[in-house]
Amino acid sequence: MNFFDKHLPVLELARQACEARHCWSPYPEMPAKYPDAAAAQAAGRAAFEVHLGDTAGTGSRRRFALDQPGQVGWLGEEVSPYTQQPLAIDYPRADVDALFDAASAAMPAWSQASIETRLGTLMEVLDVLYREHLFELTHAVMHTAGQSYNMAYAGSGVNALGRGIEALVYGEKAMRLVTPRAHWERSFGPSQIRLEKTYRIIPRGVAVCFTCASFPTWNAWPSMLASLATGNPVIVKPHPATVLPMAISVRVFRRVLAAAGFDPNLVTLAVDSVAEPLGKVLVKHPKTAIVDFTGSVQFGQWVEQNAWPALAYTETAGCNTVVLESAEDLDAAIRSLATTLCMFSAQMCTSPQNIYIPRSGVRTPQGQVSLGEVGERLAAAVAALTRDPKKASMILATIQSPQTLAMLEGFRQQGADTGRVLLEPKPYPHPEFPQARTSTPLMLQVSTADRALYGGERFGPVSFVIACDSAEDALAQATADVREFGGLTAFLYSTDERYIAKAEAAYARAGAQLTTNLTGAMPLNFAAAYSDYHVTGLNPAGNASLTHLGFVAGRFGVSQSRRPQRSAA
Amino acid sequence: MNFFDKHLPVLELARQACEARHCWSPYPEMPAKYPDAAAAQAAGRAAFEVHLGDTAGTGSRRRFALDQPGQVGWLGEEVSPYTQQPLAIDYPRADVDALFDAASAAMPAWSQASIETRLGTLMEVLDVLYREHLFELTHAVMHTAGQSYNMAYAGSGVNALGRGIEALVYGEKAMRLVTPRAHWERSFGPSQIRLEKTYRIIPRGVAVCFTCASFPTWNAWPSMLASLATGNPVIVKPHPATVLPMAISVRVFRRVLAAAGFDPNLVTLAVDSVAEPLGKVLVKHPKTAIVDFTGSVQFGQWVEQNAWPALAYTETAGCNTVVLESAEDLDAAIRSLATTLCMFSAQMCTSPQNIYIPRSGVRTPQGQVSLGEVGERLAAAVAALTRDPKKASMILATIQSPQTLAMLEGFRQQGADTGRVLLEPKPYPHPEFPQARTSTPLMLQVSTADRALYGGERFGPVSFVIACDSAEDALAQATADVREFGGLTAFLYSTDERYIAKAEAAYARAGAQLTTNLTGAMPLNFAAAYSDYHVTGLNPAGNASLTHLGFVAGRFGVSQSRRPQRSAA
Repeated sequence: MNFFDKHLPVLELARQACEARHCWSPYPEMPAKYPDAAAAQAAGRAAFEVHLGDTAGTGSRRRFALDQPGQVGWLGEEVSPYTQQPLAIDYPRADVDALFDAASAAMPAWSQASIETRLGTLMEVLDVLYREHLFELTHAVMHTAGQSYNMAYAGSGVNALGRGIEALVYGEKAMRLVTPRAHWERSFGPSQIRLEKTYRIIPRGVAVCFTCASFPTWNAWPSMLASLATGNPVIVKPHPATVLPMAISVRVFRRVLAAAGFDPNLVTLAVDSVAEPLGKVLVKHPKTAIVDFTGSVQFGQWVEQNAWPALAYTETAGCNTVVLESAEDLDAAIRSLATTLCMFSAQMCTSPQNIYIPRSGVRTPQGQVSLGEVGERLAAAVAALTRDPKKASMILATIQSPQTLAMLEGFRQQGADTGRVLLEPKPYPHPEFPQARTSTPLMLQVSTADRALYGGERFGPVSFVIACDSAEDALAQATADVREFGGLTAFLYSTDERYIAKAEAAYARAGAQLTTNLTGAMPLNFAAAYSDYHVTGLNPAGNASLTHLGFVAGRFGVSQSRRPQRSAA
Repeated sequence: MNFFDKHLPVLELARQACEARHCWSPYPEMPAKYPDAAAAQAAGRAAFEVHLGDTAGTGSRRRFALDQPGQVGWLGEEVSPYTQQPLAIDYPRADVDALFDAASAAMPAWSQASIETRLGTLMEVLDVLYREHLFELTHAVMHTAGQSYNMAYAGSGVNALGRGIEALVYGEKAMRLVTPRAHWERSFGPSQIRLEKTYRIIPRGVAVCFTCASFPTWNAWPSMLASLATGNPVIVKPHPATVLPMAISVRVFRRVLAAAGFDPNLVTLAVDSVAEPLGKVLVKHPKTAIVDFTGSVQFGQWVEQNAWPALAYTETAGCNTVVLESAEDLDAAIRSLATTLCMFSAQMCTSPQNIYIPRSGVRTPQGQVSLGEVGERLAAAVAALTRDPKKASMILATIQSPQTLAMLEGFRQQGADTGRVLLEPKPYPHPEFPQARTSTPLMLQVSTADRALYGGERFGPVSFVIACDSAEDALAQATADVREFGGLTAFLYSTDERYIAKAEAAYARAGAQLTTNLTGAMPLNFAAAYSDYHVTGLNPAGNASLTHLGFVAGRFGVSQSRRPQRSAA
């Protein structure tokens, strides 16, 4: 079977969507619309449960076999944010040099395959993930990253698959611009020189893909596919808290690659532990040619500074800002903001954090609404959304890391000292998982004098309502945060078209993706594959744009050979 | 006048050439074919001479005025390799912060102009360089870089202009793949969300372009144009030995930009001296967003390691290899190799250096020719090419730097100790410039035990004939040089198609552009704009590929803004 021909109709629609950036997806956005949904969901849950050891913690652990080289032991330390019990899964601990050697050995045949072969095989990987593993992955993401079922299905499932196809489309575009051969003819003095030229796409080398604890697949799949499409093998280094979604992914990649006749060691898994991290070893390994990194600002900046001679694609901070200047329908704006502040307890790189409001308040058709009142209404809206445990569970889900709860407590104290606590965080009882690690959001009202408090990404459910001198000051403060601390998204409410134009220009230059005056059912930070761009590379949030030629073109070089035309040829 | 429409016919032909990589140029390749050649050449020479101070060294210096900000003095230390007298030209010494501030201030209007406006204006710059300054630049390149008149016209003139147009074509391709706007519509539950999305090309920021002493324009123009096309201002930092070609270029850029209604501070010049280099200050300046670097391995590697958060595009080492395994016409191969070894005294990043030959000799239709005989015939061919001063002057030209002569003397002594001197270097009398700094090539025969001698780029007219164990060993040694020390070009002679295929694959993976079995009038290392790729990014020679999307795509980000569809819109 020719995978390229099989998947060409979908690929062609994806190509069109990437050009027009309209709304399109080959997958249903809701679990209920998945083919034969009930059976598929039950089977997915069962497949997930098969991976688990004895989660009651009696010590019986299950091994996740990956038939990959250099295995030197077993390792695993995942704890479900829903049960706060270990998953009790052990993964192969690998000898790093063996993974690099195996990846290097696997590369030549893969890189010499045609573009069609590589793209077709990788489209098949995505299709197998969708058809055979989507709900298994949904549960795996829930019980590691801590997302809600629906988000794990949509954001970490079908939308992430879409971003993967998108990476293939961009990889193809970049490679197709290199003609495979040319005839060149010119006179030098009296003689005519005729050359046959051949141009080869040469992969850069072994890619290391770091995946994060809270949203692994959405960044990992596009990065892996961008590297693989252009001929590079990939070693996946998952965050030790969130291994299972990547282990399942790696196993599928390996199986499909092998079935297509390639060396499965094109994709391997390098698991480490919090106590003995492998990150620096992998980045500085002499065979590392590409690093994809999603994770903390601190290690991300180390990667950016130290990856050379490897290329680094990073996504780190998301110090995301809101400017609330004026609103046609303040209640609707507040509802949308509140929803987005709650979404997955603000553990998304696109979650808003710093909400800038003029000290004089917000203009509305009903008159000026004071800063104090806006803050209170926003806090009330968040409280209302999280009051009912069932609703709270669907929107807040869980807190991925215990450290986030400690951070919240620290900010609550500092916020109370310096500003005003608009909303106290507290655990909510999850209706299905009574042991779930949960917290409603912390909201603080502060002034621009407290920038040390809110200056930088504070990962988790904390937001700051910040009093500014004026509308101009609000925009200046907000875009300064983006430039200085790194921002991915930004949110604006204003009825003043001149102000909107100014904000669009300022945020564009700062490099944050701006959403203006959006109200209604769509979460403000929803990023659609095939349409929305991701990090811009224009501020410290990173450069892993996903949907930009710069994300793919550096992953390969072009080597040329030329020789005189042969009459026989 | 609309510059884009004016230049669209040429741009369209350039787009086609970049896709097909066939032979094309909008310019005549020989000075004699330039329109109204005699008058143009005389005017160019006169224009060059106007720049000069009293070159007899009496201390009277001429100022090269550039109406750019932050001027804090005058500075110049160029010496003509042809006369070994100072050019006695002083350039504005600039306050670096003032240049960055001016560049930053110039950027918004330029980056907000349409792609057509930017491309048209930059095509006009190239056209003005061609129509009004080409022979002035030819003399400027001669008397700084030390190239011959013909090379300064062709390689540093029309071919460099071609590489510039090529950068515009790639920049346009990368930008056109970003749609300026989209309509996006999807249901979320019962409600329909309709968004207008706008995508903006945002330049990364101020680019610093380092240009080298021996071949400034060929790398500089494409780098400058890649940055400018995508909206970034450029600060040019020329090597202190070779300022004039870049000063003339910068003045033309500034004049055309200003005439088109833009701030001329989009392009400025930052001159320094050998004693007080500005390089590290410029690379580490907080406003530096892009670094283009052509120059030494040593500083180039520092740039690559330290440029972050700026992007770095580099061209550094050229440890270029030859494998001579067998030949259909050994004399023709030797003639071609000898010519290329002599070309501009091997002061090109593409000059061959390490010539690997099996110890058993080279197979020819006339039988095996011993290694010793091949080395002697190659040395004799070089000697023959350089015996006649007039011919020598056309091919060898001059030695750009006095340090190169010192290096030659060092290698001659080491080579005599450890191997065999095949050809002794000596000055040749330049027929037109009796004071010219010249040297015929040094050729040494060594073995692979002497790798310390030839392992790395030895910039200047020195080559090594290296005895290898076998044909396989020759290829292994040569490609190891490329991988370890960085190689741009490679040259192979073989009549064995299996060996050629193996060599093509090995060099492709190592990332050197290979020329096989070429004989005749074309210099082996001639690189044609619109057809030949440059450095691959796959080995330490650098990543400034010039003709790859990776060279342009990182120079801009994409910022998006989205808002609900307005019924009035």
